[in-house]
Amino acid sequence: MQYCFGVDLGGTTVKLACFTADGTLIRKWEIPTVVTDGGSHILPDIAASLKDYCRSAGLTEVLGIGIGVPGPVTGQGIVNRCVNLGWGVLDIPKELGALTGLPVAAGNDADVAALGEYWKGGGQGSDSMVLVTLGTGVGGGIIHGGQIIHGAHGASGEIGHMVLNRHETERCGCGKYGCVEQYCSATGIVRMAKKMGFAENLTCKDIFDKAAAGSAKAQAVLEQVYAYLGEFIANVCCVFDPEMVVIGGGVSKAGQPLLDGIQRYFSQYIFHAAADIRFSLAQLGNDAGVYGACKLALSRFSEK
Amino acid sequence: MQYCFGVDLGGTTVKLACFTADGTLIRKWEIPTVVTDGGSHILPDIAASLKDYCRSAGLTEVLGIGIGVPGPVTGQGIVNRCVNLGWGVLDIPKELGALTGLPVAAGNDADVAALGEYWKGGGQGSDSMVLVTLGTGVGGGIIHGGQIIHGAHGASGEIGHMVLNRHETERCGCGKYGCVEQYCSATGIVRMAKKMGFAENLTCKDIFDKAAAGSAKAQAVLEQVYAYLGEFIANVCCVFDPEMVVIGGGVSKAGQPLLDGIQRYFSQYIFHAAADIRFSLAQLGNDAGVYGACKLALSRFSEK
Repeated sequence: MQYCFGVDLGGTTVKLACFTADGTLIRKWEIPTVVTDGGSHILPDIAASLKDYCRSAGLTEVLGIGIGVPGPVTGQGIVNRCVNLGWGVLDIPKELGALTGLPVAAGNDADVAALGEYWKGGGQGSDSMVLVTLGTGVGGGIIHGGQIIHGAHGASGEIGHMVLNRHETERCGCGKYGCVEQYCSATGIVRMAKKMGFAENLTCKDIFDKAAAGSAKAQAVLEQVYAYLGEFIANVCCVFDPEMVVIGGGVSKAGQPLLDGIQRYFSQYIFHAAADIRFSLAQLGNDAGVYGACKLALSRFSEK
Repeated sequence: MQYCFGVDLGGTTVKLACFTADGTLIRKWEIPTVVTDGGSHILPDIAASLKDYCRSAGLTEVLGIGIGVPGPVTGQGIVNRCVNLGWGVLDIPKELGALTGLPVAAGNDADVAALGEYWKGGGQGSDSMVLVTLGTGVGGGIIHGGQIIHGAHGASGEIGHMVLNRHETERCGCGKYGCVEQYCSATGIVRMAKKMGFAENLTCKDIFDKAAAGSAKAQAVLEQVYAYLGEFIANVCCVFDPEMVVIGGGVSKAGQPLLDGIQRYFSQYIFHAAADIRFSLAQLGNDAGVYGACKLALSRFSEK
């Protein structure tokens, strides 16, 4: 039997998973992300954990490792600055390959999650897909003909940093002003709610709950969020026109009302030729990363 | 010797060109586009003209025909409504193939022009490219790994219909409000100039000329245009991060000052990872379409 590893590297934990070559998840575990010493322990820790697992499970035939990383990654797997990890420029396939003796494929975490949703989640059956991840930030991934579009500088799918409001005076985490992320992420939604008169200690879920319970004030906040989401996703689809848009991330737990709200404004803003783009919710939750990482490795290193 | 045809189908004329298989243009001519009878004469006219040329030039070995069409075209060459031509849904490779007995590849005209600039113009030497066409309207084409990204509904690269101003009250030709095209096309620039106090009968070139001659009022118009262009192109590049952005269309005759103006605002709006994207001017002018159409056919039908 042949196996493949999927690794989802986050700022606090690393998710690791072992799959069979046909894509069945057989084991999943986590290790902490040690960000001290410029992040120099991260890849050795991952390598040690994978080797331990191979030994204890008696795996001999491993096709390779796929890994998703929180930063821009080129098609060759070169990462260019992961602020959260302390990394500068790093050749992940080379480094992790040397530590494990296995072939390694690397991608940006949001891109890799998109590939996971395309393979086994909300984008199944489509040929091209955009994943919009509404979490603490806003991320995205572009799948074209079953492949991630990484971008020349690893920045394709960085849709959270499109400019939505050129008049914004507060600064985004990226250093610019008026990014999508400042309005449509969980933190962005809370920020907007406060501006519209809500109290300090509110969570994003509270706002959705209040709206569902009939609060006109909360509904007004969400209406603004839906308008922004529908508009910016329509703009994304004028650049790359996919078969499907999949909405993921913590905010997507709001479910159908969120999807309905987005689509209402999307129809208003989308170019007519692309009006048939289908929407769905992400299905893999926190596992999208390990699935997509495994698929990235399988499509590079498996025979078929 | 093997040959290949490139056809650029416009609303008033059809440009046709014959190339050798290594991409040398050997003959170029035009015929009128006859849009009566629901556009049903267009493909027969093209077929007859190409067959005439083959006969008179004594060509026997023709690899195929590439054609660019003014409307959304899928990767399979199916066009979905060309308003200017009177066409509904049409399978161009099938129809034109039956009329000529040659293999046919079709694409959207802006996408095909992008492929031309990538192959023999401003995008030479890059692996991925976005063409931004600033003409009567604003069009675009996305080249990834040397291939056009057509989009699931033929709408990839329809960047002229991204929303730039959600508060716009005048309607765009597409039926929406606030599209890029309403501000950054030649007609859009004139529209803005009038709003900023210029007289009625001004052309886009007049505005660039006046700005070059020191008119502060004209410079203010262009500053606004550059700001919009820099912002929307940065947004495009957050979706699809190319090695190069090539600026074409009639407005691009303004040359280096235009490029400098765009890049000044692009740097301000672009996500840091993609800040190294290079800019250049298109080089093929009105020939971009026939070059790109030829390349589209060559990459489908030639051996190598």
